[in-house]
Amino acid sequence: MTTVIAAESSLVATSPTDSTSRRGPGRPRDQDLDQLIVGATLELIDAGDEVTVSRVVDRSGVSRAALYRRWPSLTSLIAAALDVGRVVPPELPDDVELRSALFASMLQGADSAALAGYTDERFRQRIRLVMADRALQRAYWTSHVARRRAPIEDALRRGVEQGRLRADLDVAACFDAMAGTAYYQVVVRGERLGDAATNARLEAALEVIWRGMLA
Amino acid sequence: MTTVIAAESSLVATSPTDSTSRRGPGRPRDQDLDQLIVGATLELIDAGDEVTVSRVVDRSGVSRAALYRRWPSLTSLIAAALDVGRVVPPELPDDVELRSALFASMLQGADSAALAGYTDERFRQRIRLVMADRALQRAYWTSHVARRRAPIEDALRRGVEQGRLRADLDVAACFDAMAGTAYYQVVVRGERLGDAATNARLEAALEVIWRGMLA
Repeated sequence: MTTVIAAESSLVATSPTDSTSRRGPGRPRDQDLDQLIVGATLELIDAGDEVTVSRVVDRSGVSRAALYRRWPSLTSLIAAALDVGRVVPPELPDDVELRSALFASMLQGADSAALAGYTDERFRQRIRLVMADRALQRAYWTSHVARRRAPIEDALRRGVEQGRLRADLDVAACFDAMAGTAYYQVVVRGERLGDAATNARLEAALEVIWRGMLA
Repeated sequence: MTTVIAAESSLVATSPTDSTSRRGPGRPRDQDLDQLIVGATLELIDAGDEVTVSRVVDRSGVSRAALYRRWPSLTSLIAAALDVGRVVPPELPDDVELRSALFASMLQGADSAALAGYTDERFRQRIRLVMADRALQRAYWTSHVARRRAPIEDALRRGVEQGRLRADLDVAACFDAMAGTAYYQVVVRGERLGDAATNARLEAALEVIWRGMLA
């Protein structure tokens, strides 16, 4: 049950090699506990069940005390679980061809929400949860989404410094426009990212935004 | 039938004078029934309750038979209820100053979701519902959102014909980028449209998109 999840939650916790090398007989290590806890939380989310401390305890087999010690807030636990399978993309190299890197990142979905291991259903479930709970939404924004935006925003800033992009560019607003177009496909149109027509529309929008950013 | 409802934005509340003048003794008019049915549906939605036929019947006082006769599908009823308070903006005049009309429309929220009588909470509730139900999402898209986009898309097409905007413009993709930026503020950042910082970011993104659309 937890194999797939354990592999995926390497993002939240640690890499699998890491955890294997550390795992010995006896009392489970903190990191294993985290995988059990986050895995159980994700199962509840995927099943559409409300996440409560009791349910996470029941499903994970981890004690209530251990759960509270590791996750003082249910909100941050849910936010972490929602982020399983998503990665913070690496910084782009200084000499990267900005336009292609940007398009690749947005179209492959490094932060446009179509992600390897991050299913359409889980994405929809995530949106439902954050729309129902502002505290969760803000926690997820701060600890996860905002961090994933950083490499692209940094690359855009370098583009400004190098004189390629307009000096007065509001980098965050540009990111919002690009990622927002992708979200609109799923949240408003009800399309799936990756479909040919949806991708074509997203690419056309990126062209417009790119032209608008150029110096 | 749905046209009437969409046109009557003040549906839940119809102004008292209006409803008084129409309501006579005896059997209620179809329009009154619609108002009762849609109003009851909206109350359930606003309360966060699941919308079922039985609950709408109980709350509206309209018979089950009348409800089925007027709304063969619960999905289209919920879609109509979600649209109460929103209007299809009028066509823009031929000689309109395109840039200002576009900015006004997006910033005032003709389709950017910050709408008179359409609260932030109802917007969030709408997103939760459509994320949980693809059929509802598609119904709402086709019968409501897509129609509200038309006046702006038409104006953009005229801008292309007049040579003001690029000949190869994908008008739908441009609309997605503009509206998508607005949705991103609420759905991902958890902000409220209308806040100064949010508006400033939205306006900066519109500038970029506008420049990218110019011939």
